[in-house]
Amino acid sequence: MIKKIPCLFVVLMVVASVHAQERTLTERLGYPRDAKLLIVHADDLGMAHSVNVATIKAFESGLVTSGSIMVPCPWLPEIAAYARANPQADLGLHLTLTSEWTQFRWGPVAPKDRVASLLDNNGYFRLTETDAAKYADPKEVEMEIRAQIERAKALGIVPTHLDSHMGTLYQNKALFEIFLRVAREQKLPVRVAKAWFTRADFLPELLTPNDVFIDRVLDINPGVAPQDWASFYTDALRKLEPGVTEVVIHLAYDDTEMRGATSDHPAWGAAWRQRDFEFFTSDAFRKVLAENNIKLITWRELGKLIPK
Amino acid sequence: MIKKIPCLFVVLMVVASVHAQERTLTERLGYPRDAKLLIVHADDLGMAHSVNVATIKAFESGLVTSGSIMVPCPWLPEIAAYARANPQADLGLHLTLTSEWTQFRWGPVAPKDRVASLLDNNGYFRLTETDAAKYADPKEVEMEIRAQIERAKALGIVPTHLDSHMGTLYQNKALFEIFLRVAREQKLPVRVAKAWFTRADFLPELLTPNDVFIDRVLDINPGVAPQDWASFYTDALRKLEPGVTEVVIHLAYDDTEMRGATSDHPAWGAAWRQRDFEFFTSDAFRKVLAENNIKLITWRELGKLIPK
Repeated sequence: MIKKIPCLFVVLMVVASVHAQERTLTERLGYPRDAKLLIVHADDLGMAHSVNVATIKAFESGLVTSGSIMVPCPWLPEIAAYARANPQADLGLHLTLTSEWTQFRWGPVAPKDRVASLLDNNGYFRLTETDAAKYADPKEVEMEIRAQIERAKALGIVPTHLDSHMGTLYQNKALFEIFLRVAREQKLPVRVAKAWFTRADFLPELLTPNDVFIDRVLDINPGVAPQDWASFYTDALRKLEPGVTEVVIHLAYDDTEMRGATSDHPAWGAAWRQRDFEFFTSDAFRKVLAENNIKLITWRELGKLIPK
Repeated sequence: MIKKIPCLFVVLMVVASVHAQERTLTERLGYPRDAKLLIVHADDLGMAHSVNVATIKAFESGLVTSGSIMVPCPWLPEIAAYARANPQADLGLHLTLTSEWTQFRWGPVAPKDRVASLLDNNGYFRLTETDAAKYADPKEVEMEIRAQIERAKALGIVPTHLDSHMGTLYQNKALFEIFLRVAREQKLPVRVAKAWFTRADFLPELLTPNDVFIDRVLDINPGVAPQDWASFYTDALRKLEPGVTEVVIHLAYDDTEMRGATSDHPAWGAAWRQRDFEFFTSDAFRKVLAENNIKLITWRELGKLIPK
């Protein structure tokens, strides 16, 4: 008996461990294995007044659950005031290393001369994520993303998650490593989808079972014709597989400010954002969620899986 | 004869010199002594898209002659593109050391850690000109205004004059001394009015006859009732005295962006800027100019009086 107890204990531990590893994210969140969980996530908060007011309106509809904030952008204080007044809101940081418009730009939160590799000749962040990643000194990236997190906290934002504007921090292993290290230190989940593992080897290589990563990200291709907007999302939601999906959307009004800001990128412009706003605050969206038994969740729930 | 010629020469020189000193600014500009010359100057370019588009529209009317640009603001690239495409435009720099709105803010062009005295706890410029002046280290002010001039030039702006957003650089002698030194070095006129000499002793003390300063600045008090806007300006223009006057105005549209930006300062808000836009692009304004023989001029003409 004395010899058998440890053996049984080991066997039970192994079984428990295998079982723990096999539990899906939906189960870890307290839902059945076949649950379809959806985070409806609005990017780019703080970028423009139009983005802030449209997204806040969408949060009030209850249909958009989450958003993330661009700390270097001029309208940060407006969304920070919203965050302070609405501590239950599911707001993360959209860590920003690019300034992609040409008429309307921003630069770093860290002192400019200490993050020079991130800047163009005029002291702004670079226009594209590929150039940003190509020229970035990883130490300066770390300094800048830490400065963004610090400024957000100083303004009373308590972020529930982290992601990366234009995906700059997923462009190579060195950048993703910094992103993950900072996120682990902050005990915050990052936007990573299992579905991306085949696209970038370093993702499965660097992530451990202690990290929280969702199953897939759904986003629209700006090439979808305006009249097909609602049907694109409706079809995708009807076909939604079990697990945790994040639909990444971009909300704003098709107004003068937004047209001015995005005038050089019509495919990612003001009308496109207004269409996202219209679909994701519509009764049609509410109906497709109900008919397909899709449950809305937030990053806050995912964050609770990370031991504090 | 040999002795007389130098005497006559000296007498002539003295007469010429007295005469030169007595020549008014209007005469130095090539106008009669009793000419009424007016610069119609729109402040705050670069601050917001609404400001840029309204001011550009007003320039096109021919009734608004000049403007000045806030280099640290997010919409600088849009107005810099206009400046490059319209090299004849009379654009100066509205040197900026304050960030006065609460929802929408900006910070320095120089590296943050080298101009710390200019910043609040969140890394933005301070809200008021009095606080900005109170805490500013003059060396850091010099570094920042030089950085603003450099960035403007790098973006292809060739400034015709300099002024100071919210008048921060006129708050005390130390700041004005820096402003004047940098302007002289750049060989650019600054916004200074003789009419201000009684308000600040350091102005006549520091200025020399080689500096170009205008006679007076006219601006509206935000307390003027909306229905009295046109009559305030019309009356002031009817009573305009000879000399060089600058009317300092603030143009924008009363739109969502501008209402959002100025929501905490209704007295300096969007409707107020729309009223300025309406009056200064109106036939009524054109008529009052003609009826009162007021001639529009620019800072470029004043700048030509500065030896290069």
